[in-house]
Amino acid sequence: MRYRLTIEYDGTPFVGWQRQDNGPSVQQALEEAFGRFTGESVVTTAAGRTDAGVHALGQVVHADLRRDWEPFRMSEALNYHLKPDPIAVLDCRPAEAGFHARFSAIGRRYRYRIANRRAPLTIDRLRAWEMTRPLDHDAMHEAAQHLVGKHDFTSFRASLCQARSPLKTLTSLAVSRAGEEIEIAARAPSFLHHQVRNMVGTLVQVGLGRMKPDALRAILAARNRSAAGETAPAHGLYLVAVEYPPAGLLLAQAGGSEDSEADE
Amino acid sequence: MRYRLTIEYDGTPFVGWQRQDNGPSVQQALEEAFGRFTGESVVTTAAGRTDAGVHALGQVVHADLRRDWEPFRMSEALNYHLKPDPIAVLDCRPAEAGFHARFSAIGRRYRYRIANRRAPLTIDRLRAWEMTRPLDHDAMHEAAQHLVGKHDFTSFRASLCQARSPLKTLTSLAVSRAGEEIEIAARAPSFLHHQVRNMVGTLVQVGLGRMKPDALRAILAARNRSAAGETAPAHGLYLVAVEYPPAGLLLAQAGGSEDSEADE
Repeated sequence: MRYRLTIEYDGTPFVGWQRQDNGPSVQQALEEAFGRFTGESVVTTAAGRTDAGVHALGQVVHADLRRDWEPFRMSEALNYHLKPDPIAVLDCRPAEAGFHARFSAIGRRYRYRIANRRAPLTIDRLRAWEMTRPLDHDAMHEAAQHLVGKHDFTSFRASLCQARSPLKTLTSLAVSRAGEEIEIAARAPSFLHHQVRNMVGTLVQVGLGRMKPDALRAILAARNRSAAGETAPAHGLYLVAVEYPPAGLLLAQAGGSEDSEADE
Repeated sequence: MRYRLTIEYDGTPFVGWQRQDNGPSVQQALEEAFGRFTGESVVTTAAGRTDAGVHALGQVVHADLRRDWEPFRMSEALNYHLKPDPIAVLDCRPAEAGFHARFSAIGRRYRYRIANRRAPLTIDRLRAWEMTRPLDHDAMHEAAQHLVGKHDFTSFRASLCQARSPLKTLTSLAVSRAGEEIEIAARAPSFLHHQVRNMVGTLVQVGLGRMKPDALRAILAARNRSAAGETAPAHGLYLVAVEYPPAGLLLAQAGGSEDSEADE
């Protein structure tokens, strides 16, 4: 029996979603919580393998269990056993036939938060990237529009990225400001490893006036990681939501398309 | 030379604003930061003596220094020396003649955040009060209107409250919802100790359907702390802003009126 979970987490104390030898991962915490109330050895699979420090507001995970569980009870039990880890199950339901958290996903939405102010963050520490110099968010938004569409994103791809192709389709990339906070909202079927953080690090160069908005065209064309800006820090990034086809239309996506990669 | 500072802090690691023997206070951290770059022994006075765990977005503080400092440099030096404490100076300026952070204040604004959802908080842990059962925010808002105005707030006053009189004028108290978050915004010239948290704890009883909105009238009339609800936890409370008279009109307020108390 496969279950589909929507989970939220504070990425600060974790080495990332995926199990690793060098510290606690979200996956390990979740699988151990499953083990504590089911007695089963449960393996979980996430839509996006978020990196160390990256937060999630709507990560989607699937898990296969031998026994049937009432979904609401399962989410309550998981939340109980996840404490004190900052991970919470927001929703739990039986998965549709053929559902795979990663390979069935047809869209990912990320948000990047920049706190553009002189004073260090206190309440929002490790929840946003602190940038003390004033950023021109309109110029950043204009620059971002050059990245929307289907492109070779090699210039924005981490050297460790395992995607088979650097070709990705960026559905939208919007930069907006509310007071001292700048938000960068990115949406795509999938992203390359570090793609959002590398795009943010480059847009910030535009926001600081160090390059013009249309410089993004040349950076894309260069297909060279060193042409773009630095990788923005992990703690400003949030996996907001994962999108799936409407009920009954899953099978067409099964098996993993080019767009099934997502490693932020 | 008196300086006026606006500061922000995460109340979690502190015993409150005021220096105490039992742990670190915001006041002590700020005064030690002053000492590190001025060499002076500086005493600070705040508009609101926030309790342990209560956050501030716009606390106002004054400090007297022997030497003159350029205000921007002072705020930069303080922010440097305050690290790693989660306290930040947002603004620093020379204080007007006669200015006193506490006694000159003519208004305080607090916000209380309730996360009304089943799942435990992760990213907002210790930033809002978690209430799993559904709250009727419209009923809470209706109930809140019975508290607006000048009343004897004995029913909402902490036993340790040192105010000379339980008479206070509540300017406004508004309850609103945005998704799973309920916000209670309170504004008054000043508050009794725990007044906001005791009002919130009582409004929640209305939100849960355990009492009707107009029960607040009888609770006020009882002038008895046990007539009202429990004290809401500190970590949902934020001191948002402190209001002062326009420039040049300070002296009329000096010396401390009945409305100079503020101990949340």
